[in-house]
Amino acid sequence: MDTTIQEPVNGDIVFTNHVGPEIDRATERLHPSSVCVITDSNVNEAVLTVLRKSSETLRNADTICFPAGEEHKNMETVQKIWTLLAEKKATRKSLVINIGGGVITDMGAFAASTYKRGMPFINVPTSLLAAVDASVGGKTGVNFNGLKNEVGVFRNAEEVIISTLYFNTLPPSELRSGYAEMIKHALLDSPEALNRILRTDITADDPDPLLKILEENIKVKQRTVAADPTENGPRKALNLGHTIGHAFEEMALENHTPVPHGYAVAWGLVVALVLSRMKLGFPSEQLQRLSAFIYDLYGAFPVTCDKYPHILELASHDKKNDTAGVFNFTLLKNIGEPVTDVAVNSDDLTAALDIYRDLMKLP
Amino acid sequence: MDTTIQEPVNGDIVFTNHVGPEIDRATERLHPSSVCVITDSNVNEAVLTVLRKSSETLRNADTICFPAGEEHKNMETVQKIWTLLAEKKATRKSLVINIGGGVITDMGAFAASTYKRGMPFINVPTSLLAAVDASVGGKTGVNFNGLKNEVGVFRNAEEVIISTLYFNTLPPSELRSGYAEMIKHALLDSPEALNRILRTDITADDPDPLLKILEENIKVKQRTVAADPTENGPRKALNLGHTIGHAFEEMALENHTPVPHGYAVAWGLVVALVLSRMKLGFPSEQLQRLSAFIYDLYGAFPVTCDKYPHILELASHDKKNDTAGVFNFTLLKNIGEPVTDVAVNSDDLTAALDIYRDLMKLP
Repeated sequence: MDTTIQEPVNGDIVFTNHVGPEIDRATERLHPSSVCVITDSNVNEAVLTVLRKSSETLRNADTICFPAGEEHKNMETVQKIWTLLAEKKATRKSLVINIGGGVITDMGAFAASTYKRGMPFINVPTSLLAAVDASVGGKTGVNFNGLKNEVGVFRNAEEVIISTLYFNTLPPSELRSGYAEMIKHALLDSPEALNRILRTDITADDPDPLLKILEENIKVKQRTVAADPTENGPRKALNLGHTIGHAFEEMALENHTPVPHGYAVAWGLVVALVLSRMKLGFPSEQLQRLSAFIYDLYGAFPVTCDKYPHILELASHDKKNDTAGVFNFTLLKNIGEPVTDVAVNSDDLTAALDIYRDLMKLP
Repeated sequence: MDTTIQEPVNGDIVFTNHVGPEIDRATERLHPSSVCVITDSNVNEAVLTVLRKSSETLRNADTICFPAGEEHKNMETVQKIWTLLAEKKATRKSLVINIGGGVITDMGAFAASTYKRGMPFINVPTSLLAAVDASVGGKTGVNFNGLKNEVGVFRNAEEVIISTLYFNTLPPSELRSGYAEMIKHALLDSPEALNRILRTDITADDPDPLLKILEENIKVKQRTVAADPTENGPRKALNLGHTIGHAFEEMALENHTPVPHGYAVAWGLVVALVLSRMKLGFPSEQLQRLSAFIYDLYGAFPVTCDKYPHILELASHDKKNDTAGVFNFTLLKNIGEPVTDVAVNSDDLTAALDIYRDLMKLP
């Protein structure tokens, strides 16, 4: 299945399960002076050994391979990538191909965007989360001083190649993690889109129908990003669930019990829907339905009262909280009706966390 | 003297010797949530103590101050800046004001461009070199693994404030360093501009006439950059003298006898003019005249035959040599007539270095 009709231009997304030939086609179009693949140890073994068979580009490319894991998404690894690119004599007309999950696409894109003030790169996400979340919108970055994606730039890939072939190489928790971002897109889109997503079986064996659903879902993000490439206005809608989601994620990381990003987003969505109910009259029955769905699939992130001040502190560091001292939330008036920059104070947030604990059956 | 008429827009350059009030005006226009000044120890003492008296913004701003010197233009310092920005709770709506020489404006701009994927910044160059070279064109960056500006991004300042007030706080070698870039711009512009620049006394006491000459000179660069913001085409003209200049600069750094950037550019210009003579018929009398002028002002960078292979190796790392294995030079057919991407091979370059040594009276 290949849904591309036109020749892609910069930043275009190609949905196809013929990944090797598409990599060759994109490389031919960009005619780089050399090609360097950035990947991690898991992907190198599970995906690249097979993918090289159908791509001459990959067979001839240099490969920079790092141990898999979020703990390697840092400036130390970026500096290693810069050093290796220089050793391999990469120039500004060389091409980087990032093949892997969100860690690889975010970090490889940041390294390429800053090497010699920027060289072109292609992203080939191999996880559902990276396909849905990390590959659209030109966000690149790494964690710094314990803060998620604290350092980075906005820069589009020359092309993003999205396929559903490799999802079955991932543990089910990874799939559920990406699924949370699909739920978020559908919540921003329409009641119909949400119903379709809640009915989708992401673990189904046939990759082609899923590719079609993924395309529809990712286009919600594409439309939002196209209207606002540097996140000053409407793009903030995509932050739904992320302010508290990131705080949960960072708190879990501090306690050395990391949670998958999508799980944190799912729990953050519940808090955002509670706040939406409180501030914008989001329908109660939808809040009940969605929080039950999320509880069934993701369980609950454990929160106790004594953790509230720390959660508020972490949320205040969120990149989108760009006005010091105020929490700016993206909330929903209804499904498909996001409102950005809703001012939320500490009391609101404390009340919402209380209700979150009730909904998530926490003591 | 204030030559600004219109309200500046992003990336605009304001030429004024009323720096404090202009900083306040720019800050008011941008209405940031907080302001952080990035500077070095020399500038903090020589410039900021005075400048704070005429700028409320500076009196109220946080200051991040580093030891002066090219050796601090590295990722270690950038990481310290990111950490301090986070400690000072800077958000994406905060403003960074970089006040200093090229090290501060390049590095401060890179740190601001990558903190939380980019926050706004203003550049206030205090050296002639930074005013002429580092403040136009959106180049940000730091040195990495011994290579100059190996890491960076293209991103424009919200505003660049250029004045001639602080040049007398600098040693004469610093002034001559900036002057070399002015000669380069004039070479790219016209015989008349070149004659004006060669007659200019940059050490004159009155800052206002110099500001006018500086404005004319910098506009050569502005025009070139505006046509080509990411350096794929005509902007390469600005690379005149830099391929070999950078190689000289890096070799000097390796030998722990660093030379000012502008001196290296001046010597690189001589090599470029020799190559221009060889490849494009640049007039011999102009070559003689300019190399004598440069020899009188800058002396000679010592080069011996046994260093040629290393110079060629260093030149091959130049960011603009984007086609692997070929030296792409910007050369002149005549004064004011640059030609970019002139292919130069190792034999040409070796011959040019021989002639450089003759012109520079080297043994």
